[in-house]
Amino acid sequence: MQLIVEKNEAAISQVAADLLFGKMISKHRVNLAITAGATPQKTYELLVEKVKQKSYLKHVHYYNFDEMPFLNQEAHDGVTMTCLKNLYFTPAGIPAQQIHPLTASNYQTHDARLLADGGLEAIFIGIGADGHFCGNLPQTTHFQDETVAVDVTSRPDMADILKNEMVKAGVSEDLACDYYVTMGPKSVMAAQQVILMAIGEAKAKIIKQALFGEVRQAVPASILQLHPNLLVLLDEAAAREIMS
Amino acid sequence: MQLIVEKNEAAISQVAADLLFGKMISKHRVNLAITAGATPQKTYELLVEKVKQKSYLKHVHYYNFDEMPFLNQEAHDGVTMTCLKNLYFTPAGIPAQQIHPLTASNYQTHDARLLADGGLEAIFIGIGADGHFCGNLPQTTHFQDETVAVDVTSRPDMADILKNEMVKAGVSEDLACDYYVTMGPKSVMAAQQVILMAIGEAKAKIIKQALFGEVRQAVPASILQLHPNLLVLLDEAAAREIMS
Amino acid sequence: MQLIVEKNEAAISQVAADLLFGKMISKHRVNLAITAGATPQKTYELLVEKVKQKSYLKHVHYYNFDEMPFLNQEAHDGVTMTCLKNLYFTPAGIPAQQIHPLTASNYQTHDARLLADGGLEAIFIGIGADGHFCGNLPQTTHFQDETVAVDVTSRPDMADILKNEMVKAGVSEDLACDYYVTMGPKSVMAAQQVILMAIGEAKAKIIKQALFGEVRQAVPASILQLHPNLLVLLDEAAAREIMS
Amino acid sequence: MQLIVEKNEAAISQVAADLLFGKMISKHRVNLAITAGATPQKTYELLVEKVKQKSYLKHVHYYNFDEMPFLNQEAHDGVTMTCLKNLYFTPAGIPAQQIHPLTASNYQTHDARLLADGGLEAIFIGIGADGHFCGNLPQTTHFQDETVAVDVTSRPDMADILKNEMVKAGVSEDLACDYYVTMGPKSVMAAQQVILMAIGEAKAKIIKQALFGEVRQAVPASILQLHPNLLVLLDEAAAREIMS
Repeated sequence: MQLIVEKNEAAISQVAADLLFGKMISKHRVNLAITAGATPQKTYELLVEKVKQKSYLKHVHYYNFDEMPFLNQEAHDGVTMTCLKNLYFTPAGIPAQQIHPLTASNYQTHDARLLADGGLEAIFIGIGADGHFCGNLPQTTHFQDETVAVDVTSRPDMADILKNEMVKAGVSEDLACDYYVTMGPKSVMAAQQVILMAIGEAKAKIIKQALFGEVRQAVPASILQLHPNLLVLLDEAAAREIMS
Repeated sequence: MQLIVEKNEAAISQVAADLLFGKMISKHRVNLAITAGATPQKTYELLVEKVKQKSYLKHVHYYNFDEMPFLNQEAHDGVTMTCLKNLYFTPAGIPAQQIHPLTASNYQTHDARLLADGGLEAIFIGIGADGHFCGNLPQTTHFQDETVAVDVTSRPDMADILKNEMVKAGVSEDLACDYYVTMGPKSVMAAQQVILMAIGEAKAKIIKQALFGEVRQAVPASILQLHPNLLVLLDEAAAREIMS
Repeated sequence: MQLIVEKNEAAISQVAADLLFGKMISKHRVNLAITAGATPQKTYELLVEKVKQKSYLKHVHYYNFDEMPFLNQEAHDGVTMTCLKNLYFTPAGIPAQQIHPLTASNYQTHDARLLADGGLEAIFIGIGADGHFCGNLPQTTHFQDETVAVDVTSRPDMADILKNEMVKAGVSEDLACDYYVTMGPKSVMAAQQVILMAIGEAKAKIIKQALFGEVRQAVPASILQLHPNLLVLLDEAAAREIMS
Repeated sequence: MQLIVEKNEAAISQVAADLLFGKMISKHRVNLAITAGATPQKTYELLVEKVKQKSYLKHVHYYNFDEMPFLNQEAHDGVTMTCLKNLYFTPAGIPAQQIHPLTASNYQTHDARLLADGGLEAIFIGIGADGHFCGNLPQTTHFQDETVAVDVTSRPDMADILKNEMVKAGVSEDLACDYYVTMGPKSVMAAQQVILMAIGEAKAKIIKQALFGEVRQAVPASILQLHPNLLVLLDEAAAREIMS
């Protein structure tokens, strides 16, 4: 594990943006899976400035790693891809042929597609206060899972979670399906590098637990300790528990 | 995971020897941790012929990944290093400065030393019918463990195991200590590549369980599924359960 | 430059075969350009045994780096590909979809194709007593040349060379075209590794000149000194001038 | 060759700084040789902000690739290292143990030291309007040269060049020695990546000539075309001749 701590969100987001941009400078195809959500917002603001209208980045290919579909639109953009487009793909002007959506319709072939495309150079992810990463919430997936669908029956509160994500995405909770799809721990660990970013005091406790605590499925992100090329990007607030 | 199955022990050992030799051909330092035991015997027979008296391999550095010390000789060769010398280092004529013993005396600094040396390019390991790899027997280590000492109290049968290993090594059981040292799952997973070899029908069941079953500490080798660069070398007998 | 010297042809061919086989063990596509001719014959004999009927090598892709077409058959196999098939592709049972012929018809798009395919992991070449490598004979190509056609007018003796190659290939000299195609120095140097093999006393003088002498177009192979990952495989006879 | 063109100095310097910073994010030692002079000034201004007081970059090691010593101070900083300290090392607060000066006293062991240190991950260089790179001026070094001393007798105007460099460095021309030291073309090409940066219209002509013209010693930088991992960073003015 390599650990990078910067003073605040602005500083660690700058590191993340520089680092992601650096990975794109290549003669050959580069495959990246990137996270939606709040954590990377500042990173994408900075990254958009670096990548927009840059023809020399046309060999960079993007994947999402989870998707929460809208009802009756399983083959199309769901919550994750909509968010990624808003935050990054659209302002950065990434051509459609460089974006490879994981959807509720194609998730069963996602791992095979990634392998055929040459595998992920890196996967850029966040972490939840409950220890989830990607769609791997406690009680939903197992360490050996590749890309899977997670059902509403997986947890007693999953129906509420699904509806709540719709509301957070600004649409009616009636659009919630009774499942979502996600790259499981095994699929995520198959990337050549895992870049985990966390910002803010609310993440301090789980960061300590996930990175230095017991590796167990109840704390899904704890598995990431075992990746040979794990890079952790934190602001000081998120690092509080591990620096003291 | 990349899976290579060959007809028999001779054929898969040839693949292993070629592959290990290929990794040694480099301008720069190459760090390898290699296994003792029965599984690699044929591989080392073949490899010795390739590497002995080869001055162009002087930048290849070797590490053992576990050690069972002899009583009152904790800083010296134990069961593992004695076996490695017999099988490989001595017949291959590897100079002492290229061999970096892990001992009962230095295990606490082993991970830091590996990191300072540039990390392991690859770790070549076997698997036990009980799912152990290196010294990670069920009930002895946890997934988050780095290089550790495993105590006689870890399992009810550990005292017997320790004595039995002495006998297998051809010495008195009175030489058994009440502990051994091993790279834990976290240390092993930190290698850039994990090469897992299994031969014979007795390994068929655990191979299926470890590589395609649930990832759990009761089957220590199941964690290896999650390494991004896991290479599995099997003969047909060991692959029987996964090929049918 | 990394230099490997073995006692004789058998020993250095074993190193070459092991090394090439090692490069093929990968989860992802591996692109190799390999040489025809007399130098690699023993290597291919050994390599055929390692690769034939190995389904786990189906991601290995092969390219030739030059071609001398037969008259009126410019889009088909010429001297080089015929030789490669005889020595390696056919006995090894390499499927057609893993073989990507460079021909007199497609040479102008060869470099772009290699780039699109991800570039060459390695190019395995020989050297002529005149310092040529691939089809880069003295007076035919320039260091800055990519894949090009070399014309009969390039040298006073080129018509004879072209005819003679037909005779050596066992066909009528009437089948000679008035040109051949070859990857030029720039194309060869673009490979991530250059593996240069030479066997026998007749190569001793040029090996010294090419690897330790002046870099100049009159000795085309002298440019290879400047590749950051040049691996030179020699038997003692070919190394005689540089070991004394 | 990978070519990146940005609108102006500010934009291409931003790419260079991001890229260099990205290379530094590693668990293991990273060796970089970096250029002094006017071209990288803006890059270093940006890079200093990224690297200063960053304890997570303590494994990044720096080398200069040429040096023009001050009279009677051959073992100490000359023009190049003085400039590098002013532009980068001092404002960035790089600890002395991460800086490995090439001097007039140690140049004969510089290549061996680089090899022992693991080789250069990248060398960041500029280009002169005369086609020079590092201290490889026309008529001073040959393509096959490793790190060498260039003598005042190499060119009729070398005495004036040496004196003039002193004046440009703000010291008396009396401090000029009658030689300087530089990594030669062979040493530079041994880096795993060459990053060539050029800014401004005055470089437009040589950029075309060096990157797309004949490879010959009279245009030293023309050899860089043949590096398998050459990255060229230009502003539009420097790219004018090759974009039209």
